[in-house]
Amino acid sequence: IDNDFRFGRWPLCLYAEWKEVPYAEVSTRKKTFAEVQTERLDQAERTVLIKCPSKINEKKLLQYLSSHGNVKSHFFFENRGISALIEFSEKGSIASLQDAVGIPSASEHHVVPFKSRLFTFTLKNPGSQRIEETPLHLSPQCHIPVKDLIEKLCLADSISSQMYMLLNEYQLTEENIKLRFLACSLVRDFTCAYFPDSTVKPFGSSVNTFGKLGSDVDMFLDFRDTGKHATKMKKGPFEMEYQMKRLPSERLATQRILSVIGDCLDNFGPGCVNVQKILNARCPLVKFAHQPTGFQCDLSVSNSIAIRSSELLYIYGCLDSRVRALVFTIRCWARVHGLTNSAPGTWITNFSLTMMVMFFLQRRSPPIIPTLDQLKELAGKHSCFCGYCSLFNFFIILKTNFSLLLLMALVFFPLDVLLGEFFEYFGNFDFRKNSINLRKGKEVNKPESSPLYIWNPFEQDLNISKNVNQPQLEKFVAMARESAWILQKEDKTQQIMDKEPWGLAALLIPFGKSNSSKMKNRMKGIGSETIRSLLDSLKLNNANSQQKAVGK
Amino acid sequence: IDNDFRFGRWPLCLYAEWKEVPYAEVSTRKKTFAEVQTERLDQAERTVLIKCPSKINEKKLLQYLSSHGNVKSHFFFENRGISALIEFSEKGSIASLQDAVGIPSASEHHVVPFKSRLFTFTLKNPGSQRIEETPLHLSPQCHIPVKDLIEKLCLADSISSQMYMLLNEYQLTEENIKLRFLACSLVRDFTCAYFPDSTVKPFGSSVNTFGKLGSDVDMFLDFRDTGKHATKMKKGPFEMEYQMKRLPSERLATQRILSVIGDCLDNFGPGCVNVQKILNARCPLVKFAHQPTGFQCDLSVSNSIAIRSSELLYIYGCLDSRVRALVFTIRCWARVHGLTNSAPGTWITNFSLTMMVMFFLQRRSPPIIPTLDQLKELAGKHSCFCGYCSLFNFFIILKTNFSLLLLMALVFFPLDVLLGEFFEYFGNFDFRKNSINLRKGKEVNKPESSPLYIWNPFEQDLNISKNVNQPQLEKFVAMARESAWILQKEDKTQQIMDKEPWGLAALLIPFGKSNSSKMKNRMKGIGSETIRSLLDSLKLNNANSQQKAVGK
Repeated sequence: IDNDFRFGRWPLCLYAEWKEVPYAEVSTRKKTFAEVQTERLDQAERTVLIKCPSKINEKKLLQYLSSHGNVKSHFFFENRGISALIEFSEKGSIASLQDAVGIPSASEHHVVPFKSRLFTFTLKNPGSQRIEETPLHLSPQCHIPVKDLIEKLCLADSISSQMYMLLNEYQLTEENIKLRFLACSLVRDFTCAYFPDSTVKPFGSSVNTFGKLGSDVDMFLDFRDTGKHATKMKKGPFEMEYQMKRLPSERLATQRILSVIGDCLDNFGPGCVNVQKILNARCPLVKFAHQPTGFQCDLSVSNSIAIRSSELLYIYGCLDSRVRALVFTIRCWARVHGLTNSAPGTWITNFSLTMMVMFFLQRRSPPIIPTLDQLKELAGKHSCFCGYCSLFNFFIILKTNFSLLLLMALVFFPLDVLLGEFFEYFGNFDFRKNSINLRKGKEVNKPESSPLYIWNPFEQDLNISKNVNQPQLEKFVAMARESAWILQKEDKTQQIMDKEPWGLAALLIPFGKSNSSKMKNRMKGIGSETIRSLLDSLKLNNANSQQKAVGK
Repeated sequence: IDNDFRFGRWPLCLYAEWKEVPYAEVSTRKKTFAEVQTERLDQAERTVLIKCPSKINEKKLLQYLSSHGNVKSHFFFENRGISALIEFSEKGSIASLQDAVGIPSASEHHVVPFKSRLFTFTLKNPGSQRIEETPLHLSPQCHIPVKDLIEKLCLADSISSQMYMLLNEYQLTEENIKLRFLACSLVRDFTCAYFPDSTVKPFGSSVNTFGKLGSDVDMFLDFRDTGKHATKMKKGPFEMEYQMKRLPSERLATQRILSVIGDCLDNFGPGCVNVQKILNARCPLVKFAHQPTGFQCDLSVSNSIAIRSSELLYIYGCLDSRVRALVFTIRCWARVHGLTNSAPGTWITNFSLTMMVMFFLQRRSPPIIPTLDQLKELAGKHSCFCGYCSLFNFFIILKTNFSLLLLMALVFFPLDVLLGEFFEYFGNFDFRKNSINLRKGKEVNKPESSPLYIWNPFEQDLNISKNVNQPQLEKFVAMARESAWILQKEDKTQQIMDKEPWGLAALLIPFGKSNSSKMKNRMKGIGSETIRSLLDSLKLNNANSQQKAVGK
C-alpha cells in the first residue's frame, strides 16, 4: 500500500483548485467522506426499526413513540410486511422505549432473549380500532425493472435527460442509505458487546455515491479506536496491562473474531439468516441476510484499500454530476448486455467498469476529473492551512465568477457526448498492448498478459480485472463499438414516430434479441464486417498516434 | 419436580424449632442460602484479579490501586505465578482502573482486545526497585496431600478433633470461595454482553458448605430476571414487543446460547482454555479451564433441582457443625479406599455418599437432622409471620436456656461416636431389599433392582446412585465393616507408643496395603470370616426389627 494515497482527511473542496472541473453543485459545500460517515453512523445509533401491522395508524404510532422522545425523522417501507424506520433526536429515547417493550411470550416458541432495536408493533383489538384513511407513503427500496425503465426513458427529451433519469431511478435514496447505516449499527450492537470501542462502518456501494438500490451492504468491523488508552499510565514505576488472548497473527485474530460474531448473529440476531463464514478468503468475511432491513450483508474487518477506494469514488462522484450519471448508464448497459454479472466469474466487475469510466474521464480532452497523482499534489499543497471556512468562501467566489464558464462546459460536453465518447474510446482501446493506470491517468504498457489490465489505484502491482478472460473482453469491445454506432446513427424523431425505443433506451435492449425493425434495417444497411474493418482501421490509427505520445 | 420442596425463601432459623437440633453455632444468625449468594455475587462484581511479579511490593500495589478507589479486601495466592484478588468498596473503581490500564503491544503477538477484569502488573525497572523485605502471605487454594494429613491427625487428642482437623484442612476457605464467585462473575461479563439481565451463579460444592478445596466450579446461567419487563406497557390499545430469534424448544435455545458463550470464552476470554461443549447431555454444559483462578469450570443453564440440592445441603451443613465434619471424613475415607473416583463410572458419587451420611443422621436415635418432610412442615408453619428479627431473639433465648442441654448432646454423641455408628449402620444395611429415602427419613422397599437405590430428594422417581454396580456396593459394605471393627478395637495409647497412625488416621490408610504390625495382629487375632458372620447376624436382627417397624 502506498502511504502517499491516504485520503483520510482531505477536504473535498480541495479539488476546487483543479481548474478544469466544472462545478455543477457548488451552491453548498460538499461534506467530506469522513464527515458523512460520522454523521450517518450517529444518526443510525439513534434509530430503531418497527414492524407494523398492514393497516397502521401513522399518527398514533408517532404519538406513542413521542412519549419516549422527539422523533426526528421517520419513513415506512415494505419488506416482508410494513416496517417503519424511526430516528429519535436523542439516543436516550431508545433506552426509554426498550424499557417499555415486552418480550414475546414463550407459549409456542422459545426465544433467545437478546434485546435489540428491532420491535413489533401490534394493535390489541384490531377490529375495534379505526383504520387509517390516508394510505401510507412507502419509500421504495429497490429500483424499477429495466423494462419499465426503458418505457420511462422514451418520454425524456434528450439522451442527457435519459441518463439523469436512469441515475435517479437506480441511485440509493436518502431512506435506503439510512437503512444501510442502521444495518451496520445493529451489527455494531453485537461487536460492541465485547469490544466497546469497535465500530461497524459501511464501505463500497453504500457510501461511494455509486451504489444502486438493491446492492449488498459491505461493512467492516473497525478496532482503530481500541488502542487509544494504550499509551496512558506511563508515569510512575509500574505498568498495568490487560490480560488478553494472544494469537500468532493478526489474520488469525480477525478470523476468530469474525467467526464468533458470525455465530452471535446467527444464534441471537433477530432476522439474521443464512449466515456463512468465509474465513479462509484473502479478506475473511461473514455473509448473512438481514431480513429486518432486507439487505444481503458482507461483514469483514477494517481494510484500508477498500476504504480508500470508497473515498476516491466518493470524491469523483461529488466533483461533477455527470460522473455518476455516466457510470450508472454504463453499468446498466453492461448488465443488459451480459458484460457484468452478480455471480463471480470471468465477467468484468462493476468496480472495474467504474474505473474504466473514470479513466476515460481522465483521458478525454479536456479531462472531466483529475488523476490520482493530481489529487495527491493538491492535497499536499493544502495539507497545512486548508480550513473549511476559508474554503467555503472560496467556493462562493468561484460560483460567482465562473458560473458562465461552467455553464459553457456543460453545454459543450453534455452527457450524451461523453457517453458516445466512452464507447468510441474503449471500442478503439489497444487492450493487447496497454493497461489502464488511474494514478497517472495514462495508458501504459501491460506488465503482464492478462486480457484486461487495470492497475489497482492503491496497490500498484495488482490488476483489479485479472479475472476477465479474452472472450469477455472481446464481447465488451464489440458491444462498445455497436453502441457507438447506434448513437451515431441516432434519429430520435424517426424512432418516436415508429414507436421504437430511442437514445439510451435503444442501447438498453439486448442487441441480439432485438425484434425492432430498426435493428433489422441497421443490419441490412451495413454489414457488421464492414463496421468491424472500419473500426479496426480507426483503432490502428489511434494506437499509432498514442505510441508516438508515449515515445515522447 | 415436586413444587412442595422449593426452599427459596426459607430462613434457616426455622430449623431452630426442630427440637432435637443441638445448636453449636447459635451466637450469630446464619444467613440464608439466597442471602449468601446475593452478597457474594455483589462482592465478586467489585473484584479484579491481578497477576503480579514474584517479588511484589504489597504496599506499593495497594497504594497504586487506592488511587482508583478504596480496597475493601485483598489476598495473594499462587497459581502459575503470584496473583492478587482485589475487592474494591465500589464497583465504579473498576471502571476507573480499566480506563488507566493499557493494552499489550502487538509487536510479537496479536491480541483479541476484549477488556476483562484480569490485569498484569509489572515493574518497569525491576532492578532499580527495592525488593519487598517481608515475604507475601499466600492463601492456600488446595488441600494438603493425604500423607501429610495423616501425619497431622496423629498429633490430635481425640478422634473428634481429628475429624474437625480434616474438615479444616479440606473445606473451602473464605479466599477460595471469593475466587469461585469471581470466576462466575467473569463468565457473567460474557453473558451480560448479550443478555444484560442474566446472572451466572455457582451451585453445588462451591456453595453447599460441603465443597473441598480443589473441587470444580459448577455454575449456571440464569435468565430468570430477563422477563421482568414482559408485563409492562399493557395500557393503551397498542403492544410493542422485541423481535427475537424463535426456537421450537427451550432445550434448543439453551444449546444455542451455551454454544455461543462457549465460543466467546474460547476465543476472547483470557486464560479460558480446553473449552469443551457437551450440548447433547441431559443437562447441556460447557466445560473449560479458567487459568487465572485455576478452576475447572462447568457452565450449564439454570437447573432448579441442582439449586435445591445445593440449598438443602447448605441447610443441613449449617444446622450442626458435626454434619460437615462427618461428611468430609466419610468422603476422604471413601476416596482413600477407592470407593469414589473423580472419573465417571460405577463408583459411588460424592453426592450419593453425602446423601447416605444425611440419611444416617436422620435415622439414628436421636436424629441429628430433620427429614425433608419435617423441613417442609416447618416451612409451611412459618411461611407468613417468620421475620428475621423476632427469630434472632428466639435464638438468643435458645442459647441462654439450652446451652447446658446442647453441651450434653455434644458430649453424649460426639463425632467419633457418629463415625462409628455410620460404619455400623451401613455395614448392616439391607441394600438388597431397602432403598434410602431422605424425604421420609425411612428405609423403604426398593422400587427396582439397582444394587444401591437412593431416591432423588426432588424428583422422586429417580435413583441418584443408579450407576453403582454390585461389586462396588459390596466393596463399600466391606470397607464400612472393616472400619467399624477398627474403631471398636481402637487402642490409642498402644498405637502412639508403636508410632502407628491411630484413630481416623488409621482409617485413612488403604487396608490392603497396610504394612503396620497392628494390621497383621488384627488379622491374626480374629479371622475376617468370623467378623463377617458376626456382622451378618447383626444385620439379620436389624432387618427383622425394621421389617416390624415398617409393618406397623
